[in-house]
Amino acid sequence: MKSKILISALLLSYVCSAQADPLSAWNDSASKQAIEQWVQNATNQDRSTFIPPDKRYVVFDNDGTLWPEAPLTFQLRFAVDEIKRLAPEHPEWKNDPVVSAVLKDDFRTVAQSGEKGLMQLLELTHSNITTDEFAQRVSNWVDSHQDQRFGCRYDQMGYQPMRQLLDYLRDNGFKTWIISGGGIDFMRVLAQKMYGIPPEQVVGSFSLSEFSLTDNGTQLRKTMKGAFNDDAAAKPVAIHLFMGQRPVAAFGNSDGDLAMLQYTAANPDFRTFGLLVHHTDAEREYAYDSHPPASGKLIEGLKMAQEKGWTVVDMKQDWKTVFDPALCK
Amino acid sequence: MKSKILISALLLSYVCSAQADPLSAWNDSASKQAIEQWVQNATNQDRSTFIPPDKRYVVFDNDGTLWPEAPLTFQLRFAVDEIKRLAPEHPEWKNDPVVSAVLKDDFRTVAQSGEKGLMQLLELTHSNITTDEFAQRVSNWVDSHQDQRFGCRYDQMGYQPMRQLLDYLRDNGFKTWIISGGGIDFMRVLAQKMYGIPPEQVVGSFSLSEFSLTDNGTQLRKTMKGAFNDDAAAKPVAIHLFMGQRPVAAFGNSDGDLAMLQYTAANPDFRTFGLLVHHTDAEREYAYDSHPPASGKLIEGLKMAQEKGWTVVDMKQDWKTVFDPALCK
Repeated sequence: MKSKILISALLLSYVCSAQADPLSAWNDSASKQAIEQWVQNATNQDRSTFIPPDKRYVVFDNDGTLWPEAPLTFQLRFAVDEIKRLAPEHPEWKNDPVVSAVLKDDFRTVAQSGEKGLMQLLELTHSNITTDEFAQRVSNWVDSHQDQRFGCRYDQMGYQPMRQLLDYLRDNGFKTWIISGGGIDFMRVLAQKMYGIPPEQVVGSFSLSEFSLTDNGTQLRKTMKGAFNDDAAAKPVAIHLFMGQRPVAAFGNSDGDLAMLQYTAANPDFRTFGLLVHHTDAEREYAYDSHPPASGKLIEGLKMAQEKGWTVVDMKQDWKTVFDPALCK
Repeated sequence: MKSKILISALLLSYVCSAQADPLSAWNDSASKQAIEQWVQNATNQDRSTFIPPDKRYVVFDNDGTLWPEAPLTFQLRFAVDEIKRLAPEHPEWKNDPVVSAVLKDDFRTVAQSGEKGLMQLLELTHSNITTDEFAQRVSNWVDSHQDQRFGCRYDQMGYQPMRQLLDYLRDNGFKTWIISGGGIDFMRVLAQKMYGIPPEQVVGSFSLSEFSLTDNGTQLRKTMKGAFNDDAAAKPVAIHLFMGQRPVAAFGNSDGDLAMLQYTAANPDFRTFGLLVHHTDAEREYAYDSHPPASGKLIEGLKMAQEKGWTVVDMKQDWKTVFDPALCK
């Protein structure tokens, strides 16, 4: 009787371990093999490539790497929807060319307004409110909006293969960080639930808030002061400031991620890993590199990946699914 | 035979647990009891005061709270010693009134130069070098200097009761953070070894570094750009930026920590804890509040602690030891 139970237990454990591929949303292609090989090398104490657990810091871009950035980033969609929601309270906005373009869904004019126009939209929707109120607005927006093409809530549109990769790395003792051009306060509302990443490991573009006492406590008010745009050469700067150590792996999807990948690759102590997600799947998501819809240009990166031996993920070939079918069909 | 072993094991475990007071460097006074009571309330799932593990974030000031700040902060001593070390390479410094005051140990003139003079010393010693080189310089300085009064290395001068408190809180599931006016890059060299706090949980005053590619890799160069002085009302701003959530306990020693303590006390979700270290021990360390040697004024704080029910540690009465006798006799 005892031995029967033992054999059943052994069989069950064999069946379970055979089924439980932590990267099941990845096809068995070179990209998946490269990831698994590097993790095995990094976590095997008998190999010269071993990385001690307290050095296992890995960094991920967000827009286009963990969730879509086409045709507009989620954060820009939030800003647009907020402008529309708030417009009735601000009749004076009608006289503003950028805001009135937003209200007419005229994104060509918005794009032509350049960084100045973008900063103006951010100022109207991301400042002069408390940090608590801002988090609540992002939350309300996520609860009440869907992506038009896919018909899914935005917080259900994390790429399933990348979410599995985050879990897989954490299960192997890595600390997963987001280093993104997206707004730090915006992403932190979503990152714990979508990616299992706590607020302090989510780094993005930021401005400084202002502290004051109130009648019944304290408040932090968002401002545009000390604005830091966490993109391109600023990403290693942010990594040093927030994380305080050099990563051993970096994951991105655009030329704006190259400084972060180069900084990681130049880690003098360990064999590192670099990966770029190449958007090649117009049917299941979007296809772009040199002609991106709004952001996410990937030209230098494809050349550099060859030189440096970085893994380039071909979304169409390498991913079994893009979104988790249980969340977003 | 078996039962004898069992009894021995039980006795041993009883003896060990009786001996192992995690706060053994604290006298059994009201301060210690208040700490223990709050931790018991916060970690007992059956009480309404329970704080879930993923919300157990606690913040500590550093200068005067975890290590001495009198008569000069350690970081200012580092700056002074660096100026002296580097002066022979910079004959032009002799013409500068602040630098030449430093070279003559004329700290009255340095103090009279105010914030402008201080920023100048920081610029000469904390910028225009790579982050790696800076960390190496801090390390070399610690290895080659001692506190003159106590004859100890600076990295052996963490307050033993506070180091025990950090361990005790971590053993109870709290994440310990430093939120200090000290320089972020300076403290991170020492915090892991002295306090068991990893770099990403050490927050301080900072400036932005500059990223560039080099012949054999990449570098981050320290600059004075984007200088953020992490003191007073800036502390809650830094907590929001780096930690992204409100603490449940805050530990400081001066009026510069009050905004951080108020922000923590106004946490709407949990019963919080606030503590101020009062420097009352001229014999074993220093005694000051309204007439501090250089920094660390504590006037408002003593009043506010009464109103708010914060614990005020009387160093002389509450601490059995100040420094760990094994490190600094």
